[in-house]
Amino acid sequence: MKTLALSDVYQLIEPGPVVLLTTAHKGRANVMTMSWHMMVEFEPPQIACIVSSADHSFTALRTTRECVIAVPARKLAAKVVKIGNSSGRDIDKFKAFGLTAKPAARVTAPLIADCFANLECKVIDTRLVNAYNLFILEVLQAWTDPAQKRPKTIHHHGYGRFIVDGPAIRLKSKMR
Amino acid sequence: MKTLALSDVYQLIEPGPVVLLTTAHKGRANVMTMSWHMMVEFEPPQIACIVSSADHSFTALRTTRECVIAVPARKLAAKVVKIGNSSGRDIDKFKAFGLTAKPAARVTAPLIADCFANLECKVIDTRLVNAYNLFILEVLQAWTDPAQKRPKTIHHHGYGRFIVDGPAIRLKSKMR
Repeated sequence: MKTLALSDVYQLIEPGPVVLLTTAHKGRANVMTMSWHMMVEFEPPQIACIVSSADHSFTALRTTRECVIAVPARKLAAKVVKIGNSSGRDIDKFKAFGLTAKPAARVTAPLIADCFANLECKVIDTRLVNAYNLFILEVLQAWTDPAQKRPKTIHHHGYGRFIVDGPAIRLKSKMR
Repeated sequence: MKTLALSDVYQLIEPGPVVLLTTAHKGRANVMTMSWHMMVEFEPPQIACIVSSADHSFTALRTTRECVIAVPARKLAAKVVKIGNSSGRDIDKFKAFGLTAKPAARVTAPLIADCFANLECKVIDTRLVNAYNLFILEVLQAWTDPAQKRPKTIHHHGYGRFIVDGPAIRLKSKMR
């Protein structure tokens, strides 16, 4: 895996892909599927996300204040859905779905080597956790897999329907 | 335009499309381009979004506590970028870009008839506005254009690069 400049992180999250979120708590790693996230700031990159208090990952995230956001390509779609359909309460999802956990540099939560990007994050604001399960994260370190070239991501439209990335278009934008 | 069930709103926002946000303040309507948004709750649908204090729309949104989120299809991409490249401080963007404003039912901000979906929203939480320009919205009323069938949306990857929706895939999901 290769370091990604923190200033480029928004290019991964802003398009709205389905992502995986890993945590580690009491010596046990877990992973969940997540689509409710957005960029908050370019640099340092800050990300807001919703992790339901019904999710097993909620307690780990709130307690350890650390996580990894891993971005899977289309080829992982079937696994991503199975991860979303199961709970870390019942199984070790890394083992059950054959995911390759790798140690992160700045947080205890593991990277997922199968994903084309991994963002090591710490929780920096919990003021809206009680009201909305909304966490604000800051990305401390970002990684990409140079072996996965221009990977296509997936976008959830509800009830198991996903749209895969199509063609790219370029338009003259002054926007970053 | 046809009413959309509030319980289906998340299917529009969760996939991460570039959207337009309209406001109306002191008798003047404005529109901006936005990609930093996410779902917060299914029903009533709640949406978080970042509107920079540098954006002309910021004051209107904070003061009136109302807006419309309009979802444009791929055919509007060139206009969407022009809207993002200009400021309501300088021009009437509806006139400049030939957008069709329509009165909304529950808010003063206008609908955009050219878009395939329109969500009338009120601001319900401003606690993170000072720290992150983060607004929490609740969708009061949602509309779709039945004439636009399965429209493809666009996703921003930075610096004028957009990915257009590609093929749909279906996977057996227990997730809503």
